[in-house]
Amino acid sequence: MTIRGSESPRMSRRHRVGILGGGQLARMMALAGLPLGLQFKVLDPATDACAGECTPLVNAAFDDAAALQALAGEVDVVTFDFENVPADSARALASKVPVYPAPDALAVAQDRLSEKTLFRELGIPVPAFAAIDSREGLERALDEVGVPCILKTRRLGYDGKGQFRIRSRADADAAWEALGAQAPRVGLILEAFVPFDGEVSVVAVRGRDGEFRAWPLTANWHVDGVLSASLAPAPVPARVQETALGYARLLAEKLGYVGVFALELFRRGDQLLANEMAPRVHNSGHWTIEGAETSQFENHLRAVLGLPLGSTAMRGHACMLNWIGEMPDAAAVLGEAGGHWHDYGKEPRDGRKVGHATFRADSAPALADALESAGASLGRSGQVDPVVAVLRG
Amino acid sequence: MTIRGSESPRMSRRHRVGILGGGQLARMMALAGLPLGLQFKVLDPATDACAGECTPLVNAAFDDAAALQALAGEVDVVTFDFENVPADSARALASKVPVYPAPDALAVAQDRLSEKTLFRELGIPVPAFAAIDSREGLERALDEVGVPCILKTRRLGYDGKGQFRIRSRADADAAWEALGAQAPRVGLILEAFVPFDGEVSVVAVRGRDGEFRAWPLTANWHVDGVLSASLAPAPVPARVQETALGYARLLAEKLGYVGVFALELFRRGDQLLANEMAPRVHNSGHWTIEGAETSQFENHLRAVLGLPLGSTAMRGHACMLNWIGEMPDAAAVLGEAGGHWHDYGKEPRDGRKVGHATFRADSAPALADALESAGASLGRSGQVDPVVAVLRG
Ligand SMILES: Nc1ncnc2c1ncn2[C@@H]1O[C@H](COP(=O)(O)OP(=O)(O)OP(=O)(O)O)[C@@H](O)[C@H]1O
Ligand SMILES: Nc1ncnc2c1ncn2[C@@H]1O[C@H](COP(=O)(O)OP(=O)(O)OP(=O)(O)O)[C@@H](O)[C@H]1O
Ligand SMILES: [Mg+2]
Ligand SMILES: [Mg+2]
Repeated sequence: MTIRGSESPRMSRRHRVGILGGGQLARMMALAGLPLGLQFKVLDPATDACAGECTPLVNAAFDDAAALQALAGEVDVVTFDFENVPADSARALASKVPVYPAPDALAVAQDRLSEKTLFRELGIPVPAFAAIDSREGLERALDEVGVPCILKTRRLGYDGKGQFRIRSRADADAAWEALGAQAPRVGLILEAFVPFDGEVSVVAVRGRDGEFRAWPLTANWHVDGVLSASLAPAPVPARVQETALGYARLLAEKLGYVGVFALELFRRGDQLLANEMAPRVHNSGHWTIEGAETSQFENHLRAVLGLPLGSTAMRGHACMLNWIGEMPDAAAVLGEAGGHWHDYGKEPRDGRKVGHATFRADSAPALADALESAGASLGRSGQVDPVVAVLRG
Repeated sequence: MTIRGSESPRMSRRHRVGILGGGQLARMMALAGLPLGLQFKVLDPATDACAGECTPLVNAAFDDAAALQALAGEVDVVTFDFENVPADSARALASKVPVYPAPDALAVAQDRLSEKTLFRELGIPVPAFAAIDSREGLERALDEVGVPCILKTRRLGYDGKGQFRIRSRADADAAWEALGAQAPRVGLILEAFVPFDGEVSVVAVRGRDGEFRAWPLTANWHVDGVLSASLAPAPVPARVQETALGYARLLAEKLGYVGVFALELFRRGDQLLANEMAPRVHNSGHWTIEGAETSQFENHLRAVLGLPLGSTAMRGHACMLNWIGEMPDAAAVLGEAGGHWHDYGKEPRDGRKVGHATFRADSAPALADALESAGASLGRSGQVDPVVAVLRG
């Protein structure tokens, strides 16, 4: 254990950034921000929060008023690695120091009902949905939305947690059994199940001055509700990408959003339906570290500090593979040209995102080759196959 | 000041790397190595060594036997950010833990006489040179080498320090006055002055298994003996690059070198003369962070850990500008597409390397445009002009 001299007298002329949440997103923000000369302070309840390995960590609950007050006094701006910070905490901070994204934008994105309502207001197509607050409400919603559908908590869901798939009306009791008790605390929403051809996300950034930039559309594959692989650029017609980026821009402008966010969409042919937005850097944008001129992490920091945004242009083709539970053998990835490794420094644990790999190549066939080869060495062909199929397609 | 939990129980399966020296090179190694899941321990006498901002820092002298012994017990491999660590310290460490580059290779590169002697043995052309140990020795060396020439300390020189330019024999007294007193401690060497057309460097890496890779040849511009700008790929004929890379390979194989090193060369037309080697990551390789598939920092770590080496392929064209003394305004660089910023987090001080910027572009004209524009905004056209001239040439 070593004490590091992170608070030098020179601090005054360097930007200081507070981050609520100290997971891998905060860690990658710190790694992107240290070259910019930024000084970080990360707040997280966990003593082993992985961002603490490269930046000062304050251990406190997200609603610890004294800790938030202290943080506000020590930084120039506050941002998030975690969107489910209590809205009151964000508002308390915002009364003392600039907070980006702003608490109101955060609040919208924290609630599936308010975000879907906003999407609809903006003319962004969404699957049928209905709010629910009782068992009878579920029946009415089933009439309205139809089956198959998904019952979800409105708030605090992540990685597919807090969801129950309803295949026929006979599943309604089981769904209520699973999630009904949460209705009073986090609210529930019923959404039509979308038999999508694919999932895509827009990762975009908006500056304090309103400048908007988006990285190329990303195609995503989920397994058990958790992101497994992302591919950029998404192999879709240009007009589909334009439509998606247009939705993201509408949304960012409406919210006066500052920073990076992701808009997740379902694709059926050329039609897009918005699923949700994440008011932060996003797992489907991790490929930007090696695959784009400027990463989502760096551009998020540039945005919240009011610095010029960096180019979001791609360099070739990139695929990100998530490592869930435990890290596989690095050598199989590092041995491929364009193979890059990201170990978050976390303890292995079932279902936990512990790292990822990004493969970058100048052409789609070269990327497919690298993925196939690494997939075979790692015994993970199942994870790469859907991506390879699209690249070869 | 915050205590960070960097020594988790999971440590056993993660590689631990000790670095002697905690300056910007160690800092950039740590930033490249954290995504690989590496854990660092940096040893430096300075309490404000800038690598300490993102990695645990042990404050101790480079010849503190107890501190070295403790370090050896806590890491899996030791490497350097600083080549002038006492050879005895490196050997003491190497008796306990793998040290790369090996102390013998380090010792050769620490001494201008032994490195130039080795270059000559390997058939790598060098300027005329002669060792000196007295005032009369300087006269004999002047007969042999001729004027103009440069008197240099054999050991401990950096950034052009410990050098005296002799334009005519009348300067001999002044040269001896300036450096003669250092002859007993660090040795002196007289080298013919090379009226070069340009300076270039090979930045290369060799793995534990002998695999050798080099980044494209880099062109360098020095001001007052200190690197000011680097451009890659160097605009030279392919055969010149091949020759230079061949020299670097010969040298690495002869030394059984492991890790990244730089070979600095003078170029007159197509002819190359070796100046010196640096047994570490090198300032002329900083552009590899954004400009190459794998950076010199990551490949150095991969090499010393015995991991597969990454691709050294370039992405377009890159130019690095050094910031000496103090940091200029970041916005002028961040506002250019392909402009990247590196603030080492150091206190400003005359002559100190405090940061750098890298500009990356897909074509030479686009790179020239970005450099000209940033140079004008920063009031530093003098720094970019020679690079722009070559790019437009
Ligand atoms: N209405 C739907 N129709 C079809 N599939 C769906 C629907 N809702 C969710 N899914 C599937 O489950 C995944 C996770 O759902 P969602 O994005 O709503 O949850 P989340 O908990 O916020 O997950 P994450 O945090 O990973 O984005 C989706 O990416 C999709 O694969
Ligand atoms: N023999 C020479 N002829 C012409 N120029 C020279 C000669 N030796 C040194 N120089 C100039 O001085 C610069 C610094 O010299 P050298 O590389 O020997 O010193 P250094 O202290 O090791 O510098 P650094 O650490 O920056 O590499 C060279 O890059 C070159 O511009
Ligand atoms: Mg989602
Ligand atoms: Mg030199």
